[in-house]
Amino acid sequence: MLLSKIANILGAEFFGEDREILSLNALDLAKESELSFCESEKHTKRLQSTKAGALILDKNMLDLAPKDCVKIVSKTPYLSFAIISKYFAKPLISKEGKDPIIAENCQIMERAYIGKDTKIGKNSTIMSGVYIGDRVEIGEDCVIYPNTTIYNDCKIGNRCSLHAGAVIGGDGFGYAHDSSGRHYKIYHSGNVVIEDDVEIGANSTIDRALFASTIIKEGTKIDNLVMIAHNCEIGQNSILAAQVGLSGSTVVGRNVVFGGQAGSVGHIKIGDFATIAARGGVSKSISGGKVYAGFPLLEHREWLKMHSKIARLIKQKQKQEV
Amino acid sequence: MLLSKIANILGAEFFGEDREILSLNALDLAKESELSFCESEKHTKRLQSTKAGALILDKNMLDLAPKDCVKIVSKTPYLSFAIISKYFAKPLISKEGKDPIIAENCQIMERAYIGKDTKIGKNSTIMSGVYIGDRVEIGEDCVIYPNTTIYNDCKIGNRCSLHAGAVIGGDGFGYAHDSSGRHYKIYHSGNVVIEDDVEIGANSTIDRALFASTIIKEGTKIDNLVMIAHNCEIGQNSILAAQVGLSGSTVVGRNVVFGGQAGSVGHIKIGDFATIAARGGVSKSISGGKVYAGFPLLEHREWLKMHSKIARLIKQKQKQEV
Amino acid sequence: MLLSKIANILGAEFFGEDREILSLNALDLAKESELSFCESEKHTKRLQSTKAGALILDKNMLDLAPKDCVKIVSKTPYLSFAIISKYFAKPLISKEGKDPIIAENCQIMERAYIGKDTKIGKNSTIMSGVYIGDRVEIGEDCVIYPNTTIYNDCKIGNRCSLHAGAVIGGDGFGYAHDSSGRHYKIYHSGNVVIEDDVEIGANSTIDRALFASTIIKEGTKIDNLVMIAHNCEIGQNSILAAQVGLSGSTVVGRNVVFGGQAGSVGHIKIGDFATIAARGGVSKSISGGKVYAGFPLLEHREWLKMHSKIARLIKQKQKQEV
Repeated sequence: MLLSKIANILGAEFFGEDREILSLNALDLAKESELSFCESEKHTKRLQSTKAGALILDKNMLDLAPKDCVKIVSKTPYLSFAIISKYFAKPLISKEGKDPIIAENCQIMERAYIGKDTKIGKNSTIMSGVYIGDRVEIGEDCVIYPNTTIYNDCKIGNRCSLHAGAVIGGDGFGYAHDSSGRHYKIYHSGNVVIEDDVEIGANSTIDRALFASTIIKEGTKIDNLVMIAHNCEIGQNSILAAQVGLSGSTVVGRNVVFGGQAGSVGHIKIGDFATIAARGGVSKSISGGKVYAGFPLLEHREWLKMHSKIARLIKQKQKQEV
Repeated sequence: MLLSKIANILGAEFFGEDREILSLNALDLAKESELSFCESEKHTKRLQSTKAGALILDKNMLDLAPKDCVKIVSKTPYLSFAIISKYFAKPLISKEGKDPIIAENCQIMERAYIGKDTKIGKNSTIMSGVYIGDRVEIGEDCVIYPNTTIYNDCKIGNRCSLHAGAVIGGDGFGYAHDSSGRHYKIYHSGNVVIEDDVEIGANSTIDRALFASTIIKEGTKIDNLVMIAHNCEIGQNSILAAQVGLSGSTVVGRNVVFGGQAGSVGHIKIGDFATIAARGGVSKSISGGKVYAGFPLLEHREWLKMHSKIARLIKQKQKQEV
Repeated sequence: MLLSKIANILGAEFFGEDREILSLNALDLAKESELSFCESEKHTKRLQSTKAGALILDKNMLDLAPKDCVKIVSKTPYLSFAIISKYFAKPLISKEGKDPIIAENCQIMERAYIGKDTKIGKNSTIMSGVYIGDRVEIGEDCVIYPNTTIYNDCKIGNRCSLHAGAVIGGDGFGYAHDSSGRHYKIYHSGNVVIEDDVEIGANSTIDRALFASTIIKEGTKIDNLVMIAHNCEIGQNSILAAQVGLSGSTVVGRNVVFGGQAGSVGHIKIGDFATIAARGGVSKSISGGKVYAGFPLLEHREWLKMHSKIARLIKQKQKQEV
C-alpha cells in the first residue's frame, strides 16, 4: 500500500517521499519497505536506530527519527497503527497457493482440514476435526489430536503432541483505545513457533506474536487449559502445569517449573531453573535457581514463614484481647 | 403442557382452573401462559406483582400470590421447578424448520454445521468444524474461527470475532438439590446475546441464561479461556483478560477492565470504569471509576499498603523475638 | 515384548528367566505377565507384596522384591519405566476391530467420528464434530455436544451430558526427568470412567489415569473449564464450579463442593460433604463436613477472622505510627 494512501486513511500528514509499504513491523525489526510507529519517548533509542522506511509518530518526536525515514504525524501513533494494521492483515483463508505437501507415512484422518502451502513431516498423525491453516509447517512424528486448531503461518517441530482442543496461533489480545473508550484491534502478523519434543495439553491456547514469534523451545511440556499470550518465549525443558497463565512478552528461562494456576504479568524475565509454586503470581522479573510462591510473590521459604507468623500474630492478638 | 399434567408429574396439588402452560419463566418476566415459582419470602414483592399464569410455591405463601394465578403446592418449589424444566426444554436438534439463510458474500467452509432457521449476515466467514445451532442469528462481517460451537437461539452482532474453540450458549450451571444430596438440572431456556464489535478469545465459554439473555455489550473484548456464567451482563467496551471467571448474574458496567485470572462471585454489580487487577476476586458490589486488587478485594492502593505493612510487621516481630 | 528386549532397550542387566511382558502396571496392580517398577524405599511394603512378573528397580533394592520376580536393574527406575512405556502404548487409531455398535434410537449427526469396538447406548445423541476413540463405551440417554473429544478406552455412564469442547481421557501430565533436565513422557495406559448422571461443562478436561481409572462418580456436576488430572477420584454428587483444577490422584469424597477457581494439590483426600469456597487452595488432606477457604486453606470462619484481624492490626499499627 502506498504511504500516501495510509496517510489518507488516517487523515494524517506525511513528510517525505511517497513509497510502497509492504508490511508493518516493530521499530527494531522493521526494514526499508516497512512501516513502524513510536508511541513514547521511552523508545527514543530504538527510534533513532530504526531501519524502518516509514514511521507513525507524534509531531514532537519528528526530529528524533532518522532523516531518510518518511514520517506520518499522529497524536496517537499506537491508535493510528492499530487502525492501519487491519489493512495489512493477510487473508484468513488463502484461495491461491499450493496444495499441502504431506510427507510419507503420515496418517491424515478424514475431516481434517489442511490449508494451502502447508507442509507435514513424515510419520505424523493428524486426527479428525483438526484445522491447520495456510503456510503451516509441522515436523516429523507429530500427533495432532482431534479438534485442535493451528492458525496460519505457525511452525511445529518434530515429535510434538498437541492434545485435543488446543489452539495455536490465535490473535494476541492487543488493542489501542480512543478517548471515548472504544478499542481498536491490533492485527497480529506474527506467528507461533513450537520447537521439537514439545507436548501441549488439551484446550490450552498459545497466541501468535504481534510481529516475529511466540516461541516454545524444545522439550517444554505444557499441561491442559494453559494460556500463553502473544510474544512470550518459553525456554527449553520448562514445565507448565494446568491452568497457568502467562501475559504477553513474558520471557521464561530453561527448566522453569510453574505449578498449577500460577501466573505472570507480561514484559518480565524469569531466570533459568526457577520454580513457581502452584498459584504463585509473578509480577516482576525474578532470578533463576530459586523456588517462589504466593501473590505477591516471595521466595517459597519466606512465604511459608510469613504465613506462620501471621498465624502467630493473630493468636497473640487474641490473647491480648482476652 | 396442561397444568394438571405438571401437577401430576410432581405428585402435587394445584389450586385453580386447569390451563395450558407454554413455557417457564422468572417471576417478574412470566406471562399469562407461563409457569413460574417462588422459593422464599425474600421474593414476596416480586411474587405479589407477578403476571405468571401459574406458580409453584409453598403452602405458607399461597395467600401472597395474585388471586387469579393457579397455584401448585410444593415444599421444595425450586426442586419442583427443576424437575418440570426438563419437560419444557426445546429439542436439541430441530428436525423441522427452514434451511439457514446465508446472506451474500459469506464464506462458509466445508464441515461447518449450520442449523435450522439460522441466519448469517453478509460478508461473514464460518470456518471448518464450526457448529451453529438452530435459530441462531449472526450479523455481518463476522469471523467464526474453527471448531467454535454456538448453541441454539444465540445472537451474535456485526463485526464480531469468535476465536477457535469458543463455546457460546452452553447450559448454565444450575441445579436444585433434594434432601439426599442429589442434584436436578435446571434446563436453561434463555440464550446468549453478543452485540456488535465483540471479540471472544480461544476456548472461552459463555453460558446461556436461565431465562432471558446473558449479554455481552458492544465493543467488549474477551481474551482466551474466560468463563462467563449464565445471566451475566457485561457493559460496553469492557476488557476481560485471559482466564477470568464471572459467576452467574454478575452485572458489569461499561469500560470495566479485569486483569488475568481475576474473578467475581455472582449476583453483584461492578460499576462503570472499574479496574480489577490480575487475580482480584470481587465478592460484593463495587463502585466504578476505581482500581481494585486482591482477594478479599481492596482498593489497589490499600492492597499495596497492606502488603508492605504485613512485611514490616513481620520484620519487627522478628527483631522483638531476637 | 520379551524382557530381554526391554533390558536391551534400557541397556540394563536383568536377573531371572526371560519372559513375555504383556503390559505395564503399578506395583500393587501388576500381574504375572506385567512389568512394574519401584523408585524408592518408601514403597518397600508394596514392593514386597507385588504380584508383578518383572520389576525395574535399583540394585540396593534387589533383595526386597519377591524372589520369583525377574529384576531389571536401573539407577533411575522411574526414568527407565518412562522410556519403556512408549513401547507399550496402544495404537492411537485402531485399524482392526469391529465397527461401532450403536443402540436403537440414537441420533448420530454427520461429521461425528466413532472408533472401532465402541458402543453407544440407546437414545444417545452424538453431535457434529465429536470424536469418540476406540473401545469407548457410552451409556443410554447421553448427549455429547459438538466438538467434544473422548480418547480411546474411556467409559461414560447413562444420562450423562458432555458439553461442547470437553476433552475426556487426554494423557496424564507425567514425565520422568534425566540429569540433564530433559523430560520423558510416561505413556498413560489407564482411562477415564464417568458414572451415571454426570454433567461436564464446556471445554473442561479430564485426563486418563496412568494405570486403572480416573473416576467421576454418579451424579457429580462439573462446570466449564475445569481441569481434573490423572488418577483423580471424585465422589458421588459432588459439585465443581468453573475453572477448578485438581492435581493428580486427588481423592474427593461425596457431595463435596468446590467454588470457582478453587484448586487442590495431588495425592490427598478431601472428606465427604466438605465445601471449599471459591479460590480455596487445598494443600493437604482435609476432613469432611466443613467449609474451607483461602490459600493457605483455613476453615472458612477462621479465614474470615484472619482477614478482619489483619485489617485491624494494620489500622492499630497506623495509629501507633502517627
